[in-house]
Amino acid sequence: MDNIESTNVVDSTLLSVSREPFCAETKLDSLDSGITPTHRFYVRSHFADIPSLDPDTWNLEICGAIKHPISFTLDEIKAMPSRETAITLECAGNSRSYLAPPAEGLLFGHGAVSTAMWKGVTLAHVLKSANVQPGANVIIFTGADSGEEEEHGVAFQLAYSRSIPLDTNLLTDIILAYDMNGLPLTKSHGSPLRVVVPRWYAMSSVKWLKRIEISNTPFNGFFQKRRYVFINEGEERQESREPVTLMRVKSIVISPNHGAIVQRGPFTITGYAWSGEAAVTRIELSTTGGRTWQDATLFGPLGEHAWRPWVFQWSADEPGHYIIKVRATDTSGRTQPDSIPWNFRGYANNSIHTIAVEVPSTDDPNP
Amino acid sequence: MDNIESTNVVDSTLLSVSREPFCAETKLDSLDSGITPTHRFYVRSHFADIPSLDPDTWNLEICGAIKHPISFTLDEIKAMPSRETAITLECAGNSRSYLAPPAEGLLFGHGAVSTAMWKGVTLAHVLKSANVQPGANVIIFTGADSGEEEEHGVAFQLAYSRSIPLDTNLLTDIILAYDMNGLPLTKSHGSPLRVVVPRWYAMSSVKWLKRIEISNTPFNGFFQKRRYVFINEGEERQESREPVTLMRVKSIVISPNHGAIVQRGPFTITGYAWSGEAAVTRIELSTTGGRTWQDATLFGPLGEHAWRPWVFQWSADEPGHYIIKVRATDTSGRTQPDSIPWNFRGYANNSIHTIAVEVPSTDDPNP
Repeated sequence: MDNIESTNVVDSTLLSVSREPFCAETKLDSLDSGITPTHRFYVRSHFADIPSLDPDTWNLEICGAIKHPISFTLDEIKAMPSRETAITLECAGNSRSYLAPPAEGLLFGHGAVSTAMWKGVTLAHVLKSANVQPGANVIIFTGADSGEEEEHGVAFQLAYSRSIPLDTNLLTDIILAYDMNGLPLTKSHGSPLRVVVPRWYAMSSVKWLKRIEISNTPFNGFFQKRRYVFINEGEERQESREPVTLMRVKSIVISPNHGAIVQRGPFTITGYAWSGEAAVTRIELSTTGGRTWQDATLFGPLGEHAWRPWVFQWSADEPGHYIIKVRATDTSGRTQPDSIPWNFRGYANNSIHTIAVEVPSTDDPNP
Repeated sequence: MDNIESTNVVDSTLLSVSREPFCAETKLDSLDSGITPTHRFYVRSHFADIPSLDPDTWNLEICGAIKHPISFTLDEIKAMPSRETAITLECAGNSRSYLAPPAEGLLFGHGAVSTAMWKGVTLAHVLKSANVQPGANVIIFTGADSGEEEEHGVAFQLAYSRSIPLDTNLLTDIILAYDMNGLPLTKSHGSPLRVVVPRWYAMSSVKWLKRIEISNTPFNGFFQKRRYVFINEGEERQESREPVTLMRVKSIVISPNHGAIVQRGPFTITGYAWSGEAAVTRIELSTTGGRTWQDATLFGPLGEHAWRPWVFQWSADEPGHYIIKVRATDTSGRTQPDSIPWNFRGYANNSIHTIAVEVPSTDDPNP
């Protein structure tokens, strides 16, 4: 693991979820600035070996249903018109731990979500030079990360690959990013170039990007068909499973922490809300375990595709034990459920974030 | 931690939940014999230091509302009429992890429950010699374990102490045990003598017993008033809180494991059911996530106060993903709920045990 820790600061605000592959989520109370510092940004890797690519010799290959295969060096990409914007990425397995029964996969709490300033070139611009053939409808991203996966006791070697539809709206929004928060990408975050697909769960934001293939047939790779698909109760394995795509409307409380002692008097509850499906327009908070709700105040967004901070001024007048819940609603009226229908791999859990806090009596705490 | 691991075998069927204090739960699939082998029996300690008592010099003091204080050596206790019986102990915090939001305390899964053959003398017999005074109504057990506890930032030193009512039914059922599964108690399980209170959650089964005090006033110790009481949402700290006492009706699946691949064809689902409140008389199983239920077959009990094994013959004919639930009902009609009302410390969670399994197609698994 030297290759990770010698090159990336991993501070105590990151909670390790897995060592190999290296995965870590952010402690919610350390998401206190709207833009997440790089060393606090959650990390999701798929394989034990983190690619170590030399930016001077690395290049990006573009192939498939285009006139001629082309490739670009990093300098050539950096010479193209750049765009820098705040984008929120959320792991599809975020909040997986809170499904009942617990779902298959790394047991992420609620902290596999972060927001960074991403700088790079749009995918639309890069593909301009590629002369995409008529009829092409799929874009396949492949990273330099590879390793062994196992299913039903059968192991096989593969590289991380994901496809997205060749959709012009996406093309202009997707950034091939070389900078994160003003500095070159770190190794954990996909150096030297990664895809950043706004609005989608982050499995599409392929790190250590080495190839873009244009295709006119659906992509059937392992991470497209066997992972990042919803497998419901009663369902048999089939190719027709619904894929995980856009981030569902969701919100989290970042202060107070779950389990906190909150002193009597005014207390500001804060957090974030986001949605890949439509803009978040309302945030409601309950300090009565969901029996009553009040509107909280939304700010931002911090970027076209970034979460919105929110605050709620609580007056914690009465001692007692409180259950706090928060729920976001988007422009099309989608809101967060108390629980989502269970799915085998625990993807896209946007159920209402619930924490408990205690307001002590003034005559406490001597037992 | 040398003092634990050099004297007690802790094998891979015990999952460590905390190092200091040492706490571990049993892997459910290793509860495969009705009587749990000692090295697989779950461990709940309250303090980092595990008492190391010399059986030759140790004695049991009995004091309080009795004619004269008395004490017994271990040999004197072993010379009394003995009783050996299978008793199930469950930690009050068992299944705490599955509350939403997660409750305060050690995050036990479902494995903080085990059953052993306990041999010792009944409390009724020991108290015969003590001439308990009329009006006495409380028995206070104190262990040799002590250490620091903290509440609201205030730390204090205390020994582990718990009281039970002086109830004649309990007196004849409670065993002061020196043997566990045919051998002297190990250090982790309270050597040389522990209380075993049948039907009650195990916080009353004080380990490393050194003193029994008879009292005619309620006991207000830390573990009586501040721990092992139900603190509900909205509740302020008060002395009137409901204490944790009898084990609620409950059942667990031990095979298959949650997440297992179950091959097509007949499959025997097994587990245990128990209740401190009344005898378990019915066990039902669902392979449809709770939409339909079928009766399973109960065996035993293995002892007057021990769990009952049960089996259910499943025919896993159709490939797919299945959610299996099991629920027990006792003679007075109490049954297990889908979820319990949240309580701050997560005690007595007897909500229905739910697992997910997969039955693969025969044409799998090549992806």
